[in-house]
Amino acid sequence: MNAEIIAVGSELLTPVRIDTNSLFITERLNEIGIDVLAKTIVGDDRATLHAVLMQALARSDLVITTGGLGPTDDDITRDVAAAVLSVPVDINERIVQRIRARFESRGLRMPEINVRQAHVPRGATLLDNPNGTAPGLWMEHGRSVLVLLPGPPREMQSMFDAVVRERLQPMAGSRRLYRRTLRVTGRTESHTEEAVRSAYARWAQGAVPISTTILAALGQIELHLTAQSPDAESARLALDRATADTRQLLGIDLYSTDGRTLEQVVGDLLRENHQRIAIAESCTGGLLASRLTDVPGSSDYMERGVVAYSDVAKVEWLGVAEDMIAAHGAVSEPVAIAMARGIRDRTNVDVGVGVTGIAGPGGGSERKPVGTVVVAVTRRGANPDVRVRTFRFLGERMLVKSQATQAALDIVRRWLLETR
Amino acid sequence: MNAEIIAVGSELLTPVRIDTNSLFITERLNEIGIDVLAKTIVGDDRATLHAVLMQALARSDLVITTGGLGPTDDDITRDVAAAVLSVPVDINERIVQRIRARFESRGLRMPEINVRQAHVPRGATLLDNPNGTAPGLWMEHGRSVLVLLPGPPREMQSMFDAVVRERLQPMAGSRRLYRRTLRVTGRTESHTEEAVRSAYARWAQGAVPISTTILAALGQIELHLTAQSPDAESARLALDRATADTRQLLGIDLYSTDGRTLEQVVGDLLRENHQRIAIAESCTGGLLASRLTDVPGSSDYMERGVVAYSDVAKVEWLGVAEDMIAAHGAVSEPVAIAMARGIRDRTNVDVGVGVTGIAGPGGGSERKPVGTVVVAVTRRGANPDVRVRTFRFLGERMLVKSQATQAALDIVRRWLLETR
Repeated sequence: MNAEIIAVGSELLTPVRIDTNSLFITERLNEIGIDVLAKTIVGDDRATLHAVLMQALARSDLVITTGGLGPTDDDITRDVAAAVLSVPVDINERIVQRIRARFESRGLRMPEINVRQAHVPRGATLLDNPNGTAPGLWMEHGRSVLVLLPGPPREMQSMFDAVVRERLQPMAGSRRLYRRTLRVTGRTESHTEEAVRSAYARWAQGAVPISTTILAALGQIELHLTAQSPDAESARLALDRATADTRQLLGIDLYSTDGRTLEQVVGDLLRENHQRIAIAESCTGGLLASRLTDVPGSSDYMERGVVAYSDVAKVEWLGVAEDMIAAHGAVSEPVAIAMARGIRDRTNVDVGVGVTGIAGPGGGSERKPVGTVVVAVTRRGANPDVRVRTFRFLGERMLVKSQATQAALDIVRRWLLETR
Repeated sequence: MNAEIIAVGSELLTPVRIDTNSLFITERLNEIGIDVLAKTIVGDDRATLHAVLMQALARSDLVITTGGLGPTDDDITRDVAAAVLSVPVDINERIVQRIRARFESRGLRMPEINVRQAHVPRGATLLDNPNGTAPGLWMEHGRSVLVLLPGPPREMQSMFDAVVRERLQPMAGSRRLYRRTLRVTGRTESHTEEAVRSAYARWAQGAVPISTTILAALGQIELHLTAQSPDAESARLALDRATADTRQLLGIDLYSTDGRTLEQVVGDLLRENHQRIAIAESCTGGLLASRLTDVPGSSDYMERGVVAYSDVAKVEWLGVAEDMIAAHGAVSEPVAIAMARGIRDRTNVDVGVGVTGIAGPGGGSERKPVGTVVVAVTRRGANPDVRVRTFRFLGERMLVKSQATQAALDIVRRWLLETR
């Protein structure tokens, strides 16, 4: 079974926007054994969308569109789909009421233009949208199926998982693609590839063939393994074997084999160890605390954070000695250690983290260039009670912040693993 | 003049790869006044590419493909282009020699399959590739132009800039596209559209026509204005007028007309007012401080942040009264106000912000469901010295965090604007 994906929206034809919805949809379709034959991106232009939809429906079993279901004049997908299928458009009063209620629940009046979102091509099945006002639409045309989904990823994804997937499942064949994501830190892309590539050929030639893609971003490497099999259990076993191979080759650098992020892995280790953590951060400006608290339930182990952006804050709230800052500079190992111990002792937690550095673009010097970041981690009762490392990250401000938080989380992870 | 971009390669139809070549090409085309009408991504499949090329050539003046010019069997772009244009394919001996020499210069023998890269549809003009073996190809078909470029960005980009751009320039005519982004907060997409749409038609029909696209994400609306003109100065004036119209229609809700983010706008207002800010945040977990410190130079006005994730932290470090938390709950207006005043007074800054709420998925109740967030802002010396608002955001944890930070920044912005 073949599918095509059409993203609708003029903003996706500018130099600054990209269609990422199709990646999610492709992954879900592949999981149930549906191949993607083509992806098209069109602007809010009726004639072009009409021609593209006609061609896609002529050659593909399934056509999925995203976007163009909003309330405004340039939201054209519903109308054009109706024209392509030669059916009239009706106004669905139940949808009007639902949209009105949604606005009223937030204390707002529904603007009249939102009635457009209740336009339904005749014969279409409505797909509920728990996260927005526009329902999705499911239409059949000869042997082909046309599904219209909203553009905002949050609405599209929840609608796909709640209703679209199970409707597609019986239409798909028996072959399935099963994927697993392995996450690695502490190595470059080439060093990871070098370590793992000996296994690639073996995996590809197994009874359940596995293909491998390597992706790199922001201090994190991902290996994507894809197994093809009609049978979930044998795919799972083959992926388990490949995962075990990778663990042997990469050791502790492999930190996640089940989709968990680094902050989730660290959080789970803290919970397992019954330990609480507090953060004192300077150049990362709150991003480290924010990543830790992105995890639901993180209040179990996250006690407090300080964004000690000024020297005064480091002195007053963390007890860093003024003359230590004067002697070594705010970006130094003694200061990072004093920040980590300061936040640990003042909040009475088990693990304290101190991060100080130069995120740039200003503030660098020859000895401490932009990208210099010092991370210290301290654990109550350990001997020695502190680990500290100085990094030199490349890239601009946001990249330095992001790599620094990744490095800090990774030091905590490795230490907690050792004493588990 | 209209263009289409077609990316060829099965790897671009997997869940992990994306076509980014088209962003570069779009930017270059827009600069010389050429609009992109559609982008298509097809796998290494002859029938699909044939149909897509036919349709694109029928409706567009210019079709640019990337990829599929390599030496292997699945590199099909040359052959399919020749079939679409109904011309035979010749082997160009000069290209064979050049490729052979390129291999020999690296001490390698040319694999025989590389002869494929010397296949040239009859009548095509060769485009030199300084960074690789496959030349690009320029073909004309009736009034349309078809350009085949290699897929590797380094080869494609240098070929575009070295030869393609100057060949397109005279065809493009004198019209150019100029863009401006207007950012809005405090209104939904529909409410923004309702307020501005009366101006759309006037802008579109001006001497310098302006088209408008509206985009919504996470408590922020963007209006993208695109002016078409042969003359930079008259485009700038037309965009200035449209910006002034929008400001009149949206008032203070329009917060950026020059590409600045909300955190940059707030930062600039703080600097202008010689005021310093400190943040006490609970449910946003450090994200508010992190956004403020994403701006280079933010240490000029950002003094400190506290991630008061536990009640103890609110009491110990912000001076929130325990019985106030017991009486009203941690997520309440009195507590948010006490947090804001607490951080302001303890850090001796001008502006204090307190954020407390329920990011979810746990912790909600009927009276205070997930998504309830209270934001308080206090200013030293103002009368009254505090503004507080309770929000109910929709969506999951990360979305609640992000909308809450947007709302907090916006309250600070509005207040600072009033007293400028």
